[in-house]
Amino acid sequence: MSLKAISARDAASLDKDLMEIGGWSLDQLMELAGLSVSQAVYRVHPPSSGKNILVVCGPGNNGGDGLVAARHLAQYGYNPSVYYPKQGKNELYERLKIQLQNLDVPFVPDFTEALKSTHFIVDAIFGFSFGGPLRDPFPSIISQIESASVPVLSVDAPSSWDISGGPPKEGPGSKFMPQALISLTAPKPCVKYYKGRHFVGGRFLTKSIVEKYKLDFPDYQGIDQVVEVGVDAEGRL
Amino acid sequence: MSLKAISARDAASLDKDLMEIGGWSLDQLMELAGLSVSQAVYRVHPPSSGKNILVVCGPGNNGGDGLVAARHLAQYGYNPSVYYPKQGKNELYERLKIQLQNLDVPFVPDFTEALKSTHFIVDAIFGFSFGGPLRDPFPSIISQIESASVPVLSVDAPSSWDISGGPPKEGPGSKFMPQALISLTAPKPCVKYYKGRHFVGGRFLTKSIVEKYKLDFPDYQGIDQVVEVGVDAEGRL
Repeated sequence: MSLKAISARDAASLDKDLMEIGGWSLDQLMELAGLSVSQAVYRVHPPSSGKNILVVCGPGNNGGDGLVAARHLAQYGYNPSVYYPKQGKNELYERLKIQLQNLDVPFVPDFTEALKSTHFIVDAIFGFSFGGPLRDPFPSIISQIESASVPVLSVDAPSSWDISGGPPKEGPGSKFMPQALISLTAPKPCVKYYKGRHFVGGRFLTKSIVEKYKLDFPDYQGIDQVVEVGVDAEGRL
Repeated sequence: MSLKAISARDAASLDKDLMEIGGWSLDQLMELAGLSVSQAVYRVHPPSSGKNILVVCGPGNNGGDGLVAARHLAQYGYNPSVYYPKQGKNELYERLKIQLQNLDVPFVPDFTEALKSTHFIVDAIFGFSFGGPLRDPFPSIISQIESASVPVLSVDAPSSWDISGGPPKEGPGSKFMPQALISLTAPKPCVKYYKGRHFVGGRFLTKSIVEKYKLDFPDYQGIDQVVEVGVDAEGRL
């Protein structure tokens, strides 16, 4: 199976199309994206392998996807904690926080401390719109995630990686290789530098969108919101 | 397992709490409700048993849940058609229609004609806020659904039934007994008159909501958005 990648620019345009032409709200798209993330987590890290999950959320929509995923993970019986040092201004993020607080999901102030008791990390810091450089506190967070002894699942792209160029040449993230990656809607070009389990999620593509952006339909099975895919030598999936 | 029912009045209050206190938007709640409906359909009527599904949508949120379900069913590989004779004014319904049109899901003008080629019906006409009486064109639609030779899954309540009193004494709906029912959030009191496969969906309850409305947590498994439950003689699940 071969799945084409989408550039950061096209991914932004595709999201815009979904909302301006496709009738989608950000609430709906983020709900399905976060649900996909939670299902990928469930596959690579079933509850039997340890229930504490640290979800690290960045300031934008990647962080929002992480918040939705944390909510679903709490409903599945995990014990998620959220580290959310730089909250974005969108009112949706505020509502997602309230939803989590109502499920007694803790927002932890100290990443280093939280890392000690987690079994798994969800990296929802930056997605396809990341253009660098990393700003505080993220260089330190990325360094700690990079050298953590627990497995990591990255949402849309390994945070700190350039969306087309892959890992930074040096510094935080240069050795970052998450155990699992979930690409949302379609893989980003940086997957060609990625080695690990790779999922695609965000089951809302239409034929016309797939044709416009020259993508492929992921081969979702049954009611699944994610599909696991492989990577070949050219970075095609 | 015993699942308490919620009155129509409390169900309305619970929805209000979720949105006014809980941080939920209608877009999010309807997305998860419709997703639950689609998963229940998949269980009782897997694609191998015939792919044409006629989703009948009423003017309110029950109809909106049906629209979301139809979208997910299209993504699963079914061929849904939607009969939507009285569209409500909420802009969300308009956007859900656009999403379906972009997936080439037909909105059919003639219910009687559409019934001839469907393998399954989803009744998303009325939910917990139904107070009767049925207005045109629904008496005729309910009569046709009631006597249809294909199985029916009702969303939240069998349409035409009184939410506490059950089926009407006479006329359209008096003999309506869908093959399957999916209660959203919690069963409604009329389930005590229901015989058939019964699911609960809408996996977004919190402990405080469950306590406030004296409900039970459905026993969802894994990542499932629905759980099948049984009914005992007192109408308790």
